[in-house]
Amino acid sequence: MDAPRILDAIGSPADLKVLSDEELGILAQEIRTQIVETTSVTGGHVASSLGAVEIILAAHSVLDAPKDKLVFDVGHQAYAHKLVTGRRDLFGTLRTYGGLSGFPRPSESPFDVHPSGHASDSLSVATGLAKARLLKGSDERIVAVIGDASIAGGMAFEALNYLGAEQLPLVIILNDNEMSISRNVGSLMRHFGNLRATSQYRDAREALQERMEAGGAFSNAMAHLGKTIKESMKQFAIPQAMLFEQLGIVCTAPIDGHDIGALKETLELLLSMDAPALMHVVTKKGAGYEPAMADPERFHGVGPYVVATGEAKPQESRRRTYTEVFGEALCHEARADDRIVAITAAMESGTGLKDFARRFPSRFVDVGIAEAQAVGMASGLALGGRKPVVAVYSTFMQRAIDQMVIDCALPELDVVLALDRAGIVGDDGPTHNGVFDIAYTRMVPGLRVLAPSDEAELVSALHTALALGGPFALRYPRGAGEGAVLPEQPEVLEPGRARVVREGGDVSVLAFGRMVGQAKEAAELLAARGIEARVVDMRWVKPLDEQAIADAAATGLVVTAEEGVIAGGAGEGVLEVLARQGSQVPAVTLGVGDRFVMQGSVAEVLHELGLDAQGIAAAVEGALRR
Amino acid sequence: MDAPRILDAIGSPADLKVLSDEELGILAQEIRTQIVETTSVTGGHVASSLGAVEIILAAHSVLDAPKDKLVFDVGHQAYAHKLVTGRRDLFGTLRTYGGLSGFPRPSESPFDVHPSGHASDSLSVATGLAKARLLKGSDERIVAVIGDASIAGGMAFEALNYLGAEQLPLVIILNDNEMSISRNVGSLMRHFGNLRATSQYRDAREALQERMEAGGAFSNAMAHLGKTIKESMKQFAIPQAMLFEQLGIVCTAPIDGHDIGALKETLELLLSMDAPALMHVVTKKGAGYEPAMADPERFHGVGPYVVATGEAKPQESRRRTYTEVFGEALCHEARADDRIVAITAAMESGTGLKDFARRFPSRFVDVGIAEAQAVGMASGLALGGRKPVVAVYSTFMQRAIDQMVIDCALPELDVVLALDRAGIVGDDGPTHNGVFDIAYTRMVPGLRVLAPSDEAELVSALHTALALGGPFALRYPRGAGEGAVLPEQPEVLEPGRARVVREGGDVSVLAFGRMVGQAKEAAELLAARGIEARVVDMRWVKPLDEQAIADAAATGLVVTAEEGVIAGGAGEGVLEVLARQGSQVPAVTLGVGDRFVMQGSVAEVLHELGLDAQGIAAAVEGALRR
Repeated sequence: MDAPRILDAIGSPADLKVLSDEELGILAQEIRTQIVETTSVTGGHVASSLGAVEIILAAHSVLDAPKDKLVFDVGHQAYAHKLVTGRRDLFGTLRTYGGLSGFPRPSESPFDVHPSGHASDSLSVATGLAKARLLKGSDERIVAVIGDASIAGGMAFEALNYLGAEQLPLVIILNDNEMSISRNVGSLMRHFGNLRATSQYRDAREALQERMEAGGAFSNAMAHLGKTIKESMKQFAIPQAMLFEQLGIVCTAPIDGHDIGALKETLELLLSMDAPALMHVVTKKGAGYEPAMADPERFHGVGPYVVATGEAKPQESRRRTYTEVFGEALCHEARADDRIVAITAAMESGTGLKDFARRFPSRFVDVGIAEAQAVGMASGLALGGRKPVVAVYSTFMQRAIDQMVIDCALPELDVVLALDRAGIVGDDGPTHNGVFDIAYTRMVPGLRVLAPSDEAELVSALHTALALGGPFALRYPRGAGEGAVLPEQPEVLEPGRARVVREGGDVSVLAFGRMVGQAKEAAELLAARGIEARVVDMRWVKPLDEQAIADAAATGLVVTAEEGVIAGGAGEGVLEVLARQGSQVPAVTLGVGDRFVMQGSVAEVLHELGLDAQGIAAAVEGALRR
Repeated sequence: MDAPRILDAIGSPADLKVLSDEELGILAQEIRTQIVETTSVTGGHVASSLGAVEIILAAHSVLDAPKDKLVFDVGHQAYAHKLVTGRRDLFGTLRTYGGLSGFPRPSESPFDVHPSGHASDSLSVATGLAKARLLKGSDERIVAVIGDASIAGGMAFEALNYLGAEQLPLVIILNDNEMSISRNVGSLMRHFGNLRATSQYRDAREALQERMEAGGAFSNAMAHLGKTIKESMKQFAIPQAMLFEQLGIVCTAPIDGHDIGALKETLELLLSMDAPALMHVVTKKGAGYEPAMADPERFHGVGPYVVATGEAKPQESRRRTYTEVFGEALCHEARADDRIVAITAAMESGTGLKDFARRFPSRFVDVGIAEAQAVGMASGLALGGRKPVVAVYSTFMQRAIDQMVIDCALPELDVVLALDRAGIVGDDGPTHNGVFDIAYTRMVPGLRVLAPSDEAELVSALHTALALGGPFALRYPRGAGEGAVLPEQPEVLEPGRARVVREGGDVSVLAFGRMVGQAKEAAELLAARGIEARVVDMRWVKPLDEQAIADAAATGLVVTAEEGVIAGGAGEGVLEVLARQGSQVPAVTLGVGDRFVMQGSVAEVLHELGLDAQGIAAAVEGALRR
């Protein structure tokens, strides 16, 4: 029989308070073992969760949650938090259908303050909590845990700026693991030290100084300032501390993020100040689990793996993913056209650009977690005659919709937005599903939007966007493709021209993206019941193929299917075309209703939503029966 | 006859290069006179344009535009730029229908690099231009002009972070006029100096120091750091310079922004470095025109005025604006419920919150130009039991759509988003029209969306949102209301319940917001032609009134009318309901097609779009004829 675990005695964070630092250290190891054991089966965000164990134990030892508020940024680091807040026995259901979320979820536990799904929002939320506390005159303590990559996002800066100005009582734990998801993200934390040392910067600084000393009156004033700054700069022990101090936020020296005693002591001290403070904590991603420490990027988000070696367990599908095909196709295009520039926002690997970055380093841009900058910079690159391709997850592009509208579409620039993870993403759940992009791209004037139905179509879609120019969006799903044979030579798809993939006279299913495959299967199910369905790969979300829609109306029933919200989706666009055509054909729009979509495997979720073959077939039958 | 003006000899920026600094100074005054003369008739952004005259003349004297790129942030400061780039003779058409845009517009002139409509995007665009230059190996120079309020926006920080890290060749002119639109915006620039001096910050800093000196080993390390920082801090001549320097951007001391000689000399010097540099320029808003200097906030964006006094010319309408009514109603609600907190993003006056700020200062939050922080902080305030109301222009909420989805709607928080300037805004044109909010709010699960049709409905809409709780959006237009009598006691509107405002059996017009008034007028026009139209004030964009839609179908023709894009709009939502109801009624969706809407008076623009009474009537007649 195994030795009894301390972990098994922890029912809530209050139980941590009686433990010694040594016992907390043992508990940390037990939690690590549990995280590895569980995620080796369920997959999950391993490296960051292992790195944050001591931070979480220290915070919960000091705080009185749920009265006190522990706000996580990108909450996939919060597994230890789940384990010590009464969810130990459910932990095996992590990220599965109906199971524990891989992120904090307020409806799951009173200890989960906020969904914490998209990076850089924790500080804004925490400033709101702190302001609410002041207004109420209550005394709960507020702590935000944020990583070094997230704090470089614009939203976090806006919050720091406000926090410093208003001097709200809030302690920020900066979890500096010296590695965001990609290695070379050009973000604040990592570059600070280096920048000081780059010769280009130093040369520029000195040239300015010299020339000013040779100049007139105002130049002399500037030269004086320059000297002052240079003097100050010599004293920079920890340059990033200065930045926060300048914003009015007291900042500690770096603390060992795996030393629970030090973490507790420092956090107590900062909380006692009841003023804005930043605790700079240095951790190791994947700490305590060799394979994750050795390759933290792979263990950022990982599928099931073998505990002993860290090797990925063989997946059912050996098909290549859309992401891989996109990355290759972009390399292919870039070889032929040196104007192409690839931009990512801290997702070099996630968006399939590793190879591009290696092969075309000067044409690869990683702006860090900064989607607004990614799209805004694309606008400038296009104005400068380049052909930027911004590869961002559909859900994260929600951070740059205004830039899409104002900076790209209004000036009609050659910008391609490659929206990866469009549609249902599966185990990451509601914060990560890409179900809004059809609605938010359709509304943008002049933007053309393609939804390839398989990886071969994706290759042609990318080629089309680059060949035709103007603002374009491509949306394609997460995970394995359909096993389509890739074209030798990509096609330029005719704008607003769909393709019929199956003939049938009883009903037309107008399908977008991955729904084409489901619709084809649905047609087989229906055929077995004597119903002949025409299936159309609409290809274009915008412009829609109005002739294909008119032809569909002629079959007597139109069903649309898309992997996105119905409100504002392509199905409604089809209805609008039908209305303009004066058609009075019955129509059904299948998609995601007015709800957030929870986690599970993609197949489970599509089934629940009625967006798998069975669901589509049932909808057709139901409509024909009316 | 007037003395000949230098301005009349300026055909392009090249003509500036032959002028002496003294002549440029005279030209600056001529330009000021011209700006005041024109905007006193057309209205416009006076204070910032007057402040930036010398910056623009100096930049164009040094640069070789259009080869070199001068990128403006919030381009309404660029009137002087328009006057010296060949648009002098058209300047009288500024902001009028078919006339010169009040912002840069690339299709208007090769000297206009970018639309520059929304704050904080210039640096991202400029980093893209600079990167493009490096990739091309060309030598054009790139200069961005950005104000102190805009540079505190998250997007600008993301760009600075990237710029410093990559050391791109780019000069930023920081136009520090020590006043953003509202006076007390808590932004970077203004607070820096003060923060250093606030006793709360100093006390916190010193307490940490003392306690750490009394502590153990790691505490001592921290204490040492603290001393280093304190030493450095004493040397802060210009604290904000340090921030940019820390990001790797060479920064000058403040320069007099009205001294053309100094501006030219410094800009030349910085450009010769060919590295990231920031030129800190101090200007006076409204410089050279007494009334604007005395009240720069009113002269930020102003209607026609009397040149001699600066007094507003009497407007045709004496009706109160939606904005004013909103501000009063919110004060009324706040008196009765001390949980209400008002949040603005640098638009205290523009969103009608001046009085609220004065009466409830502790419950008034101005985050500066930082919409993401505004909505993220609202999330935290709601989690803390407060009832935040975020008042932002519809077009600027495009910057915080992700926060609306992830931080407010997903956790189902009590956050009210008050979207001012929804619909056609008139003379500001395509960058400022609020035509996307129906689409971008409809897609958000669980968000309830109200479109009041007059100012009385607005009062009840706000009351409803606060009374019912949960995530809510209200959208209401810019400018004068309909002259409705405000309710003694605001009503709680039943969700998803429309109201019939006119009976008729030949057609139903389902109208949203301001379109209700136009639809009523249209019904009168139609009645004169023997057509009886039912007019329905839909009130709710979401949830839609399905019974009202079914009733509309029974009249034999359904026409929807909304002040927003058709793609993803409420009209499509009505079509979706009709499809679900199995209705085969003909339907017409009126709204904005797939295009950006240009400037003009609201009446002119609505007419062009077919969204005035005549247009709606014509659409009904056309549909009945089919």
